[in-house]
Amino acid sequence: MVADKRRPRQVRGPWYRVQAIGTIRRPDGELTTPEAFVDPWAESVLEIVPRWAAGLAGIEEFSHLVVIFYLDRAARRRAAGALRQPESRADLPAVGFFATRTPRRPNPIGLSCPRLLRREGNRLFVTGIDAWDGTPILDLKGYFPRDEDRPDATVPAWLQSLWAAHDTERGPVGHHR
Amino acid sequence: MVADKRRPRQVRGPWYRVQAIGTIRRPDGELTTPEAFVDPWAESVLEIVPRWAAGLAGIEEFSHLVVIFYLDRAARRRAAGALRQPESRADLPAVGFFATRTPRRPNPIGLSCPRLLRREGNRLFVTGIDAWDGTPILDLKGYFPRDEDRPDATVPAWLQSLWAAHDTERGPVGHHR
Repeated sequence: MVADKRRPRQVRGPWYRVQAIGTIRRPDGELTTPEAFVDPWAESVLEIVPRWAAGLAGIEEFSHLVVIFYLDRAARRRAAGALRQPESRADLPAVGFFATRTPRRPNPIGLSCPRLLRREGNRLFVTGIDAWDGTPILDLKGYFPRDEDRPDATVPAWLQSLWAAHDTERGPVGHHR
Repeated sequence: MVADKRRPRQVRGPWYRVQAIGTIRRPDGELTTPEAFVDPWAESVLEIVPRWAAGLAGIEEFSHLVVIFYLDRAARRRAAGALRQPESRADLPAVGFFATRTPRRPNPIGLSCPRLLRREGNRLFVTGIDAWDGTPILDLKGYFPRDEDRPDATVPAWLQSLWAAHDTERGPVGHHR
């Protein structure tokens, strides 16, 4: 058997370490409970720790960001589990968790593409981030349309139904940008 | 001082563990070197480990995916460092690393939104993933236009210049979707 030089670290095992580079702050933080509907369009602040703040230079020229964060209060998924109807809605088909946005995932990592309103030093003021107050940030970068924009993307019929239901139940909050 | 029940785990420290849920396989894997330009539009395979495969049910109804992966051969960034001209191009302004897509980040996490061609069991065939052969996958989900599509996003003038240079140097490969 020939040693595989292309995957030198795979033999070490499948776990990796990631660190918080900042924290998401929400003005409505004290109202947040697991039951509350968190309005992702409320203005929030990405507070970057001083160690990394110099790396923000120029980020303010982007209209939107890509933010990766760690859902530190979500339970980590331990098994694939049974198929489920999204949001337990009886009119939707049962699908696997990868097809949904449940926070119960093998790695509780969240992703949002918020609008960047302004930068004040190491603080980025944004709207459109779907995370609780105090959530640790793992990475952020400018939103690159060539990399993230997929104008021809299509979704399952059940997801279109779900979005229509959200629009009816929550009003237009769900698709402000 | 009142205990803050909203951030119960912040006191434990800023590091978290994440696990590989699969591996990215590229047909041109043996040609990959740090110097090579990897064509992200070559067909690749996301191999999900059996433990999580049942969670893929229904993912095949999405035209595109969001894939989060761990850049296991990238050097982790240890300090914000000096501002740099993207790709060392003399005609571009110096910016911080957060404003770029350098893989040298505090957490070497990669993100791509590939087109899903088909699923065969626990194997997802995709095009448009910018990662080397053998890269561990941390999470994947369907591309939700409401969450990822930002048609009004704008970018700095230097990034538009960089993309124009890429188009000239690499041909149209850089923006197939």
